[in-house]
Amino acid sequence: MLRNLKVLLAARPNGSVAHTDFSIVEEEVARPGAGEILLRNRYLSIDPYMRVRMNEGRSYAANLAIGDVMVGDTVAEVIQSLNPEFKVGDLATGRLGWQRFAISDGSNLRRIDPSLGPVSANLGILGMPGITAWYGTLKIGRPAAGETVVIGAASGAVGSAAGQIAKLHGCRVIGIAGGERKCRHVVDELGFDACIDHRQQDFAGALAKAVGAGIDIYFDTVGGAILDAVLPLCKPNARIPLCGMIADYDSIERYGIKNLYSAIANRVTLQGFIISDHAELWPAAVTDLAGWIASGAITYRETVAQGLDQAPQALIDLLRGGNVGKQIVKID
Amino acid sequence: MLRNLKVLLAARPNGSVAHTDFSIVEEEVARPGAGEILLRNRYLSIDPYMRVRMNEGRSYAANLAIGDVMVGDTVAEVIQSLNPEFKVGDLATGRLGWQRFAISDGSNLRRIDPSLGPVSANLGILGMPGITAWYGTLKIGRPAAGETVVIGAASGAVGSAAGQIAKLHGCRVIGIAGGERKCRHVVDELGFDACIDHRQQDFAGALAKAVGAGIDIYFDTVGGAILDAVLPLCKPNARIPLCGMIADYDSIERYGIKNLYSAIANRVTLQGFIISDHAELWPAAVTDLAGWIASGAITYRETVAQGLDQAPQALIDLLRGGNVGKQIVKID
Repeated sequence: MLRNLKVLLAARPNGSVAHTDFSIVEEEVARPGAGEILLRNRYLSIDPYMRVRMNEGRSYAANLAIGDVMVGDTVAEVIQSLNPEFKVGDLATGRLGWQRFAISDGSNLRRIDPSLGPVSANLGILGMPGITAWYGTLKIGRPAAGETVVIGAASGAVGSAAGQIAKLHGCRVIGIAGGERKCRHVVDELGFDACIDHRQQDFAGALAKAVGAGIDIYFDTVGGAILDAVLPLCKPNARIPLCGMIADYDSIERYGIKNLYSAIANRVTLQGFIISDHAELWPAAVTDLAGWIASGAITYRETVAQGLDQAPQALIDLLRGGNVGKQIVKID
Repeated sequence: MLRNLKVLLAARPNGSVAHTDFSIVEEEVARPGAGEILLRNRYLSIDPYMRVRMNEGRSYAANLAIGDVMVGDTVAEVIQSLNPEFKVGDLATGRLGWQRFAISDGSNLRRIDPSLGPVSANLGILGMPGITAWYGTLKIGRPAAGETVVIGAASGAVGSAAGQIAKLHGCRVIGIAGGERKCRHVVDELGFDACIDHRQQDFAGALAKAVGAGIDIYFDTVGGAILDAVLPLCKPNARIPLCGMIADYDSIERYGIKNLYSAIANRVTLQGFIISDHAELWPAAVTDLAGWIASGAITYRETVAQGLDQAPQALIDLLRGGNVGKQIVKID
């Protein structure tokens, strides 16, 4: 008899996420009904948005209830199928949650092409984070050769891809990351032109010096004090794709942005987006990204935690900025 | 001998503008040189941006130096001309400053067509504020019939025009203003569907109730706490033209915007703009606005202070929200 392992939301975090906000339960795996599929999750993606879903109320999607399985995308393998569209051994990604097994009618699954790269990459560079980077950089940022692009959380899954995509389009790319180790990775391995450590004392001064004549595009997954430092450095008609505010997620009190006046003075456009709105563009994005990986034009890194019981720690680490590249959990 | 009267910046305001930040001087009028024009200013426009120019440093244009004539647009009459393009009696607007007389080579002047309306309207509905409302509403807001539009500072020169333009395009328009008198004006005279007093205790709750299903366009000249109340009420793909942050201008400490995360969750675009960037569109805007005034489709109001020595008080009043409609000064 297969036993399922599930990580549930046990309590809403009070500021930072704690282990006591989760509970791990074991139960019998349900049987798939007519038209359904039983999947075994192989990899779980750990992403900043999960922190938002742990709160009360709703954001752009409904938040979790206490006792719900934690939300998350996985790479999964079909192990039993009562659905003619899927056969045993097929690989797919979907929002199947923090659990070892899941049942689906197939409607929430996206089939994986294993020839495009390691299957786990479908949670990172070939999945939601990579596609977010592609869309925000190209469709909102609209980079022109010679422009200056600044990337918040440059060593993360989204930022590392966004900066490399901007480089491919002829931009000068400056990353922002926390700590020397990450900054070295961003310059030496990802090929950014520079990376500014936001933990240094005069961060705003160092950023201003690095950008020189000003910022044309700021790819923002961070918000907070970093956005406040960026706004006065923007050039006329700068674009800021907004897709995350990780600086605020784990705080009780949100940061107040004081430099929004610069968005007027510098004619800046800030545009919030949610990548799931743009499903029609995913195939084009994946084709681009897979091509760039295959040719070596862009690279990516994963931080892998071993075992589903390590998922809470992986999320805690991510929110503290502990990961380099895409944070995933390998599920036994 | 003609005597000029000038209002100079005497000191930089420490927070709120005070009378001691200005000095009034009298001097002989200079003579126009070859190709130049001597103009007598008839009306001075009082606008929120002036407060920004009184600060140290620079914004989107250079700020004033201590001792400079205060910056401002006027309606002026040519009284002597050594420039073949202008003859005595011609009327023009230009950034000629807080003074009774000014000399120009003509390059900074825009000719007035007195058939379009009272000449003072070229400082309001037919000038920078009206054109700002036209551009922000139509080019950034892009209103569709049936959409819900919220207007900050709805009784002011820009807001009153923006809301009426949105009404003309079939929108439901909700104003925000300070105090019952202004709110009555906005509904009864300007024809907005509702107006919310931002001085009431539960302003955010009252606004939420008035907007119902959510905001499609927020025309922002205010920033601050009102923008923070608006962001969570935005519908998906809402547009926010940003052209002023009057809430901050007169403060020492700027307000920190805490709800920018809602711009992601609600897929909001915030776009800063400066109307002087779009000079090529001014003739089209003035044609539209003059037509709407002539047909009675839109209306406007002026608050007129008498005498150049009243200009400092007029700016102080404006920044405190004392005016209804366009604040101007009639220069003797």
